[in-house]
Amino acid sequence: MMDSCQHIVLVSRPTGIPVAENFRLETGPMPVPTDGEVLVRARYLSLDPYMRGRMSPAKSYAKPVEIGEPMEGETIAEVVESRHPDYQPGDLVRARSGWRTHAAISAEGLHRVDPALAPITTNLGVLGMPGFTAYAGMKVIGQPKPGETVVVAAASGPVGSLVGQLAKLAGARAVGIAGGPEKCAYVRGELGFDAVVDHRSEGIEEKLAEACPDGIDVYFENVGGQIWQVVLPLLNRFARVPMCGVIAHYNGAAGAEHDLLPATMLAIVRRSLLLRGYINVEFVDEHYDAFLREVGPKVRSGEIRYREDIVDGLEKAPEAFIGMLAGRNFGKALIRLS
Amino acid sequence: MMDSCQHIVLVSRPTGIPVAENFRLETGPMPVPTDGEVLVRARYLSLDPYMRGRMSPAKSYAKPVEIGEPMEGETIAEVVESRHPDYQPGDLVRARSGWRTHAAISAEGLHRVDPALAPITTNLGVLGMPGFTAYAGMKVIGQPKPGETVVVAAASGPVGSLVGQLAKLAGARAVGIAGGPEKCAYVRGELGFDAVVDHRSEGIEEKLAEACPDGIDVYFENVGGQIWQVVLPLLNRFARVPMCGVIAHYNGAAGAEHDLLPATMLAIVRRSLLLRGYINVEFVDEHYDAFLREVGPKVRSGEIRYREDIVDGLEKAPEAFIGMLAGRNFGKALIRLS
Repeated sequence: MMDSCQHIVLVSRPTGIPVAENFRLETGPMPVPTDGEVLVRARYLSLDPYMRGRMSPAKSYAKPVEIGEPMEGETIAEVVESRHPDYQPGDLVRARSGWRTHAAISAEGLHRVDPALAPITTNLGVLGMPGFTAYAGMKVIGQPKPGETVVVAAASGPVGSLVGQLAKLAGARAVGIAGGPEKCAYVRGELGFDAVVDHRSEGIEEKLAEACPDGIDVYFENVGGQIWQVVLPLLNRFARVPMCGVIAHYNGAAGAEHDLLPATMLAIVRRSLLLRGYINVEFVDEHYDAFLREVGPKVRSGEIRYREDIVDGLEKAPEAFIGMLAGRNFGKALIRLS
Repeated sequence: MMDSCQHIVLVSRPTGIPVAENFRLETGPMPVPTDGEVLVRARYLSLDPYMRGRMSPAKSYAKPVEIGEPMEGETIAEVVESRHPDYQPGDLVRARSGWRTHAAISAEGLHRVDPALAPITTNLGVLGMPGFTAYAGMKVIGQPKPGETVVVAAASGPVGSLVGQLAKLAGARAVGIAGGPEKCAYVRGELGFDAVVDHRSEGIEEKLAEACPDGIDVYFENVGGQIWQVVLPLLNRFARVPMCGVIAHYNGAAGAEHDLLPATMLAIVRRSLLLRGYINVEFVDEHYDAFLREVGPKVRSGEIRYREDIVDGLEKAPEAFIGMLAGRNFGKALIRLS
C-alpha cells in the first residue's frame, strides 16, 4: 500500500466564477482508520453543481467547505482497510469521501454498491443523487399528468435527462433545453424528448413557445437566470416548479439591469404557481427505495438512458468542475481516479 | 321603485396608481331581469385589492374589466324582483353585482345571507372571501404548527387580521406588520398578536428580526415589495409562503434599482422554501364549508375579532378604493349604499 494520498483543498473562495487558483492539489500521509471507520480508495468522484454553493460562505442547508479543507463530494470507493464489522477490504461503497484519493471515514455514512446490478458509476448519476433529485422533484412536487407539458433545462445532464424521461413515462410531453446542436440531438434522438430548444441559438423565446403550444405545466428548475425569464410567460395556471438549483446564480452574477422580481411575484399570484426549493436528501427516507425500485430496472433494461462525461485524474477535478459550471460537460461529470 | 340606477364604470386603465379620472359615475335605466335572473339592490359593496388587477389588461385568472363597463365587485344585496323560483323579494344575498346600485343578474351565482347568524357585512369580510382567503392559505399552504412563527403584513386588514388569529389558534406565534401606531395597537391589543412591527417606523429589519427570534416558518404574503425583502432573510428552512396578493406591485412600480430576483431564487433553493400563489375560489369546493363551520362560531362568540371601515355612498367608491391601495383604510373597506 502507498503511504501517501492526494486531495484537493479549497484555498480561497471564488468571488464569481471559480478559477483554478481557488483549488490546490496536496499530498499528505495515508489516513489511518479508527474504530468504526474504514479506509477507502476512491475510484470515481462525482462533480455536481451544488459544490459551487459549498465554496461560498452563504447560509444554506449545509456548511461551507472551510478554507484549507478538502472539497466535499461523493465517490464510488473501494474499502482498503476496515475497522467496522460490516465491511471488508474489497467492498465497493458509495461514500462522501471528498476530492481525495483516500479517506478514513465512518462506516455509518456508507452505502454498498453492487457491481452486478448496473455499472458502478450509475450510483453517482442516474441511480444516484442526481437521478434521485430528478425523481423526487417530479414525484413530490412536479407531479406531471398525462398530456401535460414538462420543461427542463440542462436536459442532457444527469438530472435533466431523467426528468424528461420520467415525464414521458408519466404520459406528459417532455421539452428539453440544452446548449449546442450535439446535446440537442442527443436529447431529442436518444433520450426521446418530444422537442428540444438550443439555448445558444437565437430566438429562444419563440422556439420554446413553439415547442410548448399548450403552455408549461411543470418547469423543473435547475438553472435560473435567463431560462427562467423565457419560461415564466409560458407557465400555465397551477404550474409546478420544483427547484433543485439555480446554477446561473451560484457565481453571484449581478442579474439583470432592472428588477425582475416583481414580475415573478405577480406571476406566482396571478397564475397560482407553486415554487418549491428542495435538496434531494429531504426526500430520501420516504422515496429512495421506490426510486431504486422504479428506475433501477429501467436503467438496467436500457429503457432509461444516461450518459457520462469521464475525466481521468484527481488533478483534473478543478478544471472539469469549472467546465461543468459553464456547461462544457456532456453527461454526468465524473473523475476517474487511477 | 325608482326607474334609474347608478353605476361606476372604468373609463381608462391606470398606468400606475389609479386616480379618480379612471372612474366615472353613470346613471342608467333600471335593469330588467329575464327568466332565471333577479333584480338586486346593493346595500354594501366590498372594496378589495384584487380589483386593481381587473383594471389592467394583463393575463390573470380572471378577465379584465372592459373600458366603459362597470367595475366588478361583490355586494350584500336585497332581491327586489325575482324571476327565479328560489328567490323572493326581500331575500338577502351575496352577489357579484359590481359597483352598481342595482343589477339584474343570474340567480346561479348568488349566495344566501342570514342576518340572524352575524352582521350581514361579515359576509364580505371575516366570513366572506377575505376571511376565506386567510383560512384557505393557512389551511392548505401555510399549515402552521405549534411553536412556529407566522408573519403577516397588512395585519389590521380583513385577511391579515384573520391570518394572525388563526395562527394563534394553531398554537403558533403571530407577528403582524401594520402601518402606524393606531393600527399596531389594534393588532397587538385587540387581535392578540404576539408582536407587531410598524412598517412606517425606522429599522424595520431589526424590529422584525427581534419580533421573530426563531425565524419565520410561515409568511403569509399579501403585499410583496419592501416587506418581502425584510422577511426573506428571516425565513427558516422549509418555510411556507402562501401568496394571495402582492399589492405593492399592482400599480406597476419599477421595483428596486437592481435585480432582486436572484437572491429570492437562491433562497428558495437553499432553504427549501415553498411559494404558492392562489386565489380563494380554487379552494372553495373543498374547504368553504369547513371555514364557515370553524370560523363562524368564533366570530359570533367574539373570540375572533374583526374591524370594518365603512364609507357611505357609491360615488365615494373610487376615492375609498384608491385610499385602500395606499393603506388609508383601517379594517375591511366597505361602501354602504343608501
